[in-house]
Amino acid sequence: MCRWLAYSGSPIRLEELLVKRDRSLIDQSLHSRLGATTTNGDGFGVGWYDDGGEPRLYRSTHPAWNDRNLRELAAGVSSPLFFAHIRASTGTAIQETNTHPFRHGRWLWMHNGLIREFTGMRRELLGAVDDSLFSSIEGTTDSEAMFYLALTFGLEDDPVSAVARMVGFVEETGRKHGVADPVQMTIATTDGSTIWAFRYSSEGSSRSLYFSTRLDALKAANPDLVELAGLSDETRVVVSEPLGDLEGAWNEVPESHVGIVQPGEDELRPFVPVR
Amino acid sequence: MCRWLAYSGSPIRLEELLVKRDRSLIDQSLHSRLGATTTNGDGFGVGWYDDGGEPRLYRSTHPAWNDRNLRELAAGVSSPLFFAHIRASTGTAIQETNTHPFRHGRWLWMHNGLIREFTGMRRELLGAVDDSLFSSIEGTTDSEAMFYLALTFGLEDDPVSAVARMVGFVEETGRKHGVADPVQMTIATTDGSTIWAFRYSSEGSSRSLYFSTRLDALKAANPDLVELAGLSDETRVVVSEPLGDLEGAWNEVPESHVGIVQPGEDELRPFVPVR
Amino acid sequence: MCRWLAYSGSPIRLEELLVKRDRSLIDQSLHSRLGATTTNGDGFGVGWYDDGGEPRLYRSTHPAWNDRNLRELAAGVSSPLFFAHIRASTGTAIQETNTHPFRHGRWLWMHNGLIREFTGMRRELLGAVDDSLFSSIEGTTDSEAMFYLALTFGLEDDPVSAVARMVGFVEETGRKHGVADPVQMTIATTDGSTIWAFRYSSEGSSRSLYFSTRLDALKAANPDLVELAGLSDETRVVVSEPLGDLEGAWNEVPESHVGIVQPGEDELRPFVPVR
Amino acid sequence: MCRWLAYSGSPIRLEELLVKRDRSLIDQSLHSRLGATTTNGDGFGVGWYDDGGEPRLYRSTHPAWNDRNLRELAAGVSSPLFFAHIRASTGTAIQETNTHPFRHGRWLWMHNGLIREFTGMRRELLGAVDDSLFSSIEGTTDSEAMFYLALTFGLEDDPVSAVARMVGFVEETGRKHGVADPVQMTIATTDGSTIWAFRYSSEGSSRSLYFSTRLDALKAANPDLVELAGLSDETRVVVSEPLGDLEGAWNEVPESHVGIVQPGEDELRPFVPVR
Repeated sequence: MCRWLAYSGSPIRLEELLVKRDRSLIDQSLHSRLGATTTNGDGFGVGWYDDGGEPRLYRSTHPAWNDRNLRELAAGVSSPLFFAHIRASTGTAIQETNTHPFRHGRWLWMHNGLIREFTGMRRELLGAVDDSLFSSIEGTTDSEAMFYLALTFGLEDDPVSAVARMVGFVEETGRKHGVADPVQMTIATTDGSTIWAFRYSSEGSSRSLYFSTRLDALKAANPDLVELAGLSDETRVVVSEPLGDLEGAWNEVPESHVGIVQPGEDELRPFVPVR
Repeated sequence: MCRWLAYSGSPIRLEELLVKRDRSLIDQSLHSRLGATTTNGDGFGVGWYDDGGEPRLYRSTHPAWNDRNLRELAAGVSSPLFFAHIRASTGTAIQETNTHPFRHGRWLWMHNGLIREFTGMRRELLGAVDDSLFSSIEGTTDSEAMFYLALTFGLEDDPVSAVARMVGFVEETGRKHGVADPVQMTIATTDGSTIWAFRYSSEGSSRSLYFSTRLDALKAANPDLVELAGLSDETRVVVSEPLGDLEGAWNEVPESHVGIVQPGEDELRPFVPVR
Repeated sequence: MCRWLAYSGSPIRLEELLVKRDRSLIDQSLHSRLGATTTNGDGFGVGWYDDGGEPRLYRSTHPAWNDRNLRELAAGVSSPLFFAHIRASTGTAIQETNTHPFRHGRWLWMHNGLIREFTGMRRELLGAVDDSLFSSIEGTTDSEAMFYLALTFGLEDDPVSAVARMVGFVEETGRKHGVADPVQMTIATTDGSTIWAFRYSSEGSSRSLYFSTRLDALKAANPDLVELAGLSDETRVVVSEPLGDLEGAWNEVPESHVGIVQPGEDELRPFVPVR
Repeated sequence: MCRWLAYSGSPIRLEELLVKRDRSLIDQSLHSRLGATTTNGDGFGVGWYDDGGEPRLYRSTHPAWNDRNLRELAAGVSSPLFFAHIRASTGTAIQETNTHPFRHGRWLWMHNGLIREFTGMRRELLGAVDDSLFSSIEGTTDSEAMFYLALTFGLEDDPVSAVARMVGFVEETGRKHGVADPVQMTIATTDGSTIWAFRYSSEGSSRSLYFSTRLDALKAANPDLVELAGLSDETRVVVSEPLGDLEGAWNEVPESHVGIVQPGEDELRPFVPVR
């Protein structure tokens, strides 16, 4: 339904990954190869960190491929950690407040997939959001509801456990409403220093998700990319769909797993919803 | 905070009232004289009926004064009953789903004013909306919440009573939250044949509201307006602020009253919230 | 590069052809089958006549598939003659003034295709536009330049000859600039009662163009389409790409021809540029 | 008609001048005190330099006061030299390509004022633009035409002389067309290291223009503004209208003068058009 990209590592211009690559994220907005939809033209968003404070957002309802401001921003902004998302709406309104990434304090959140029959259980799901968080919900998507549920379940303290409880709660609610496989998701969230990337679906057949293993592999596979030369070994990209000209350096996140990109050793763990 | 206009009578081009008058609604978007804010540039909307079915909407986040499509539409569409609204946001996001008029089935709703400290009681207010209506809420404004509360309280059966109960409920909820004067409003609603226009505020000092008394008076005061010549005697306009070149034909709706524009004799009644 | 549709006949709601058909024009904005590009998401426009005066326009930079106002308008407006266009930019800015149809007085104009290497000869082409017309040019597309050249060459008096001179002039200018095949086009233009639809390219391999032959054929092929029942026998649709569920009733406009949809007998003539 | 601001000095977050000041530029978009119009809601633009290359642009057709992306960008971007502009259209279309600042290579340009009766002489003015520049013109404003004329007359080599020739040419052309006072302008242009700010009108009664004299004065007048503490002594702001809470530190640019903000000593010189 959507495509997204998360970057962590040596500060780079956003355009290196959003614009300049063959099969860049902007390319994918017009011609996705692995997505559930070919065109992801219902808006886009970028969230980036610079100085250790709250992330900044640029979100628009225009298609990414024809938004000049996005290209300007991507050329003008460098960041050591950023998220980017292109949207294909599953029905909710095309407006900035329905556009990813979503932000709460220092946290960002983005999602590809859907909660099946969300409209019918929206009230029940929102009913579980903590009072202190409720008034921060600005849009009407399933994705934002998942974020506020995860925040309610402790995202800021233990992200993996909070997302596991969120998914468990959505599945339980969905099944009460007679929905066989309520959740289809790849999700990325970050506090500005660690990225958690989840691949999961109730039916065990999740949307694609890839991560770049090691930068030395990337560099070896792309010796002509001089812009990679200065990047640290910890640099890592997580994407819905491989960026074309970095092929050879991508690993699929296995079904029902969470990848954790962090200072030091990265991790890949099985992900199991908590009911 | 906003300005609005409601028209009922012989079918006319929307532009007659939105564009061509001195101090037209589009003028007021840039230079309101009686409004709480001079500029009403945070989007606008038009809702119109044609053939007795559901009304049509055109809503935009651009200022009314510079939107070319609005002028085209106003020149191209004739209607016997239409609503128009220009918005000055009191803080909620600028997006089409926060733009008036709001529609539910055959009904339209628009509002000037605010629920004071709405954010803090939004959850409680939305909690009272009927289950069958909840999933139709698309935006985040106090105005749309008031609409869905009124629908919950029977707007489609007895509009005056439903709005009275809605206001009573909001005032009760507000006072529980320590808000002295929770409601400030002028509201227009219609089912496509009758218009109900409410002027009320908890503090007894409501935003301005005017109606045109009788068309013969309008015609007498504006003998050069040949476009008025063909209008029926039942033609009526209700506005936040008089349209300039129709001066002399406007009456203020008294504080705490509701005006009912309907086939046959119009009515003006005291309006009292029901607690 | 784009897709378009022209309708003439008994007044119908625009949505009958823009929204409700399988492979409707809105469908084609997301999934064109015969176009040079699959996605036509760089804005759209509709122009319609109602009462014999100037046509009205609704043009937007958003993709047609996610614009709610387009669906409202298409449901709310009936017309006996309308144009609709979905754009895939060949590089010029995404703005309303670059969106088709273009209007001059009573005339509308829309185009699919391009002038090859237009940027390099834009100044020379604009230089030939009549002084009285020059200041009406608002955008930067090749399509609008073709319109103002055709107006300069007498579009309002003899459309076929004016377009022939325009194409001849563009080809001559292009060849002076070393462009082998300067023109690729299907064009529709109208004065509100007759539609001229051109299919031509310098290389003799033009974009697709179809017209619906006779309404009795349409009705016979689509007996379940009750909305066709009331349409007059002169009703005619010209399209870049057949609307899906009216299949069987479409004829391709031959290479280098112009079709003329008019009161009385329609015409199909060879089209030859005048140098 | 518009308001603008130019900053040069120690790198600061754009929000310091665009958002946080009383009577900030965003305030002025809603409530200008000295402008020809109170509301400057027809779009806005920001241009900034970071690393010595081409400047970046963010331009939007929305009012500055309600654009969330502008606030995000202003919080997320620091720059040692930036331009910001809020627009009140004098009639030309509301689109990004008509929004200031305009960019050509390393140069930025913004304008407050107008060429009187521009429409009638647009063709003649554009006719004088150099061939190599013509195809870069994307919009339809007088302001952009002035920029490309100045570039044609040598802006990149000798800005004061080029602007003098541009103004002389426009006045000469205007008078040929019977326009008594063709030019009304305050203009800022920069190559990324020096800013030239012009105040001139044919009638000798130009729109307001102010510059901040010396940073020590600014600091003395605003001892509580800790964010000023780290700014270099060469830091300078040029504005259409004083920012409120920096009052006391503003000097009016005299009629028919150009101010030059540059490394080393700044300059203020009489400005005389060259005919």
